[in-house]
Amino acid sequence: MINKLIEDIKKKNAPVVVGLDPMLSYVPQPILQKSFGEFGETLEGAADAIWQFNKGIVDSTYDLIPAVKPQIAMYEQFGVPGLMAFQKTVDYCHEKGLTVIGDVKRGDIGSTSAAYATAHLGKASVGGKELSAFGEDFATVNPYLGTDGVKPFVDVCREHKKGLFVLVKTSNPSSGEFQDKLIDGRPLYEYVAQKVVEWGGMHMGEEYSYIGAVVGATYPEVGKAMRALMPKTYILVPGYGAQGGKASDLAHYFNKDGLGAIVNSSRGIIAAYKQEKYARFTEAAYADASRQAVLDMIADINGALQAAKK
Amino acid sequence: MINKLIEDIKKKNAPVVVGLDPMLSYVPQPILQKSFGEFGETLEGAADAIWQFNKGIVDSTYDLIPAVKPQIAMYEQFGVPGLMAFQKTVDYCHEKGLTVIGDVKRGDIGSTSAAYATAHLGKASVGGKELSAFGEDFATVNPYLGTDGVKPFVDVCREHKKGLFVLVKTSNPSSGEFQDKLIDGRPLYEYVAQKVVEWGGMHMGEEYSYIGAVVGATYPEVGKAMRALMPKTYILVPGYGAQGGKASDLAHYFNKDGLGAIVNSSRGIIAAYKQEKYARFTEAAYADASRQAVLDMIADINGALQAAKK
Repeated sequence: MINKLIEDIKKKNAPVVVGLDPMLSYVPQPILQKSFGEFGETLEGAADAIWQFNKGIVDSTYDLIPAVKPQIAMYEQFGVPGLMAFQKTVDYCHEKGLTVIGDVKRGDIGSTSAAYATAHLGKASVGGKELSAFGEDFATVNPYLGTDGVKPFVDVCREHKKGLFVLVKTSNPSSGEFQDKLIDGRPLYEYVAQKVVEWGGMHMGEEYSYIGAVVGATYPEVGKAMRALMPKTYILVPGYGAQGGKASDLAHYFNKDGLGAIVNSSRGIIAAYKQEKYARFTEAAYADASRQAVLDMIADINGALQAAKK
Repeated sequence: MINKLIEDIKKKNAPVVVGLDPMLSYVPQPILQKSFGEFGETLEGAADAIWQFNKGIVDSTYDLIPAVKPQIAMYEQFGVPGLMAFQKTVDYCHEKGLTVIGDVKRGDIGSTSAAYATAHLGKASVGGKELSAFGEDFATVNPYLGTDGVKPFVDVCREHKKGLFVLVKTSNPSSGEFQDKLIDGRPLYEYVAQKVVEWGGMHMGEEYSYIGAVVGATYPEVGKAMRALMPKTYILVPGYGAQGGKASDLAHYFNKDGLGAIVNSSRGIIAAYKQEKYARFTEAAYADASRQAVLDMIADINGALQAAKK
């Protein structure tokens, strides 16, 4: 999958991923009313609304982007019906040829991590059959439990040609509380990054490893250091846009080949129609606003990458 | 919920929790055949089998124990049908009066953590309604993202009188890789423990905080230190039995009041019938084997607590 992802990034000239993190407050009234009309104000109604909302955004942006990153928490909050909407979203994005990064941030000990890996990237053995559950292409993973928490994910990735993005330095304000703690003068996230390189060596693609890292856009100096420390690691960069990360800072996360990073925007794209900048789009045209926001984001990032080359 | 949990621990004289982490390989053939007969070798068939298996164990042990801890990964690997079995298990355990600790190890940034907290402990706002999704009583949480990743869980717990167990030191062999890194001479897990105390102060029960900690049974010296550092924190102790933790070491995790810790066993209870020790139980009597294993575990731990008092 890392090879296909890179190929699509090149083909579409778009190192971006759209975060499908729907909140009911983003869903236009007509969609909400239709879903609630059909299913009532129930978990099923909420799940249908976010699925219809997602479908509109995917239909209007899939030709521009290589990948989507659904955040499973936004579906899980609506219980089993919500997770059915997650499954539908994953399947629909696959139909449209998109790479799907399941933002699940799972992590546990040995056999439990293996079960999570099976859930999102592998196949479950049921009697004589091998059955895929959610079936994303990549998953995000939390490293706090160490190698024997992450290794089962790597093993499943090797078997099924899937990939990971391991949390190294997250984009949130208090990410430094534990991640920045200095150990012999070096922050914890550097030790995690070193492990990512080690795990990555076990599962290399053509140019980059299948095992990537998450480094938030909100810490560009960290991005620069992590780029140097993990040359063959793809970096998933959250925090652009709504969280405050700027395109000019993002050049640090890329290698000289113009590859090596993929920048996520969630709210900034899927709720674009609520921004003053896109006020010309009506609520009914929310998906067109998202398309425009994707075009603007690609231009912004490619512009910054061009400027950095000079 | 922490007050009810403590009350039930006292009433049943059983500081234990049964980990409902079903694997298909634990499920007796007759149950498997019935589920596959009805649903085929499908995710639905697998999910039905683990649900029927769980039901047998709950029916034969609920009067002995205060709580269960279903590990969601074991359900998630069977996709949406698996998560329906998780939901059924949670609901059934509630019918039986058990406290349910959702072992979900979730953790993310702000609004995403809030969505996870809603999924497992809170209520989702859908139109004019407030709807519960999975509805456990406690959830396990991963602290790697820092306070703004954990705080939304604490907020939901305060609103709904629910609780957490935050990962401090996990039971697996490579837990030390990051958790034991020394920062100014003190391991990282101590810094996490300090934060747990701080978060715990925001949501106190009668004797103990609603915000607990996970400290593995496989590191008794750490248990001792963590007990001292977090006097008002309930400690969830995984790793007893199958993972190698011994009862004699567990006294360290308890306060002098005989409270303060709850010990989990998963495989050792739910797959007891596969052990030589319980070979007298047939496969069909797997639930009776589990009951005996619970009785033995309670006696083992209470014996060790008595011995430690002398």
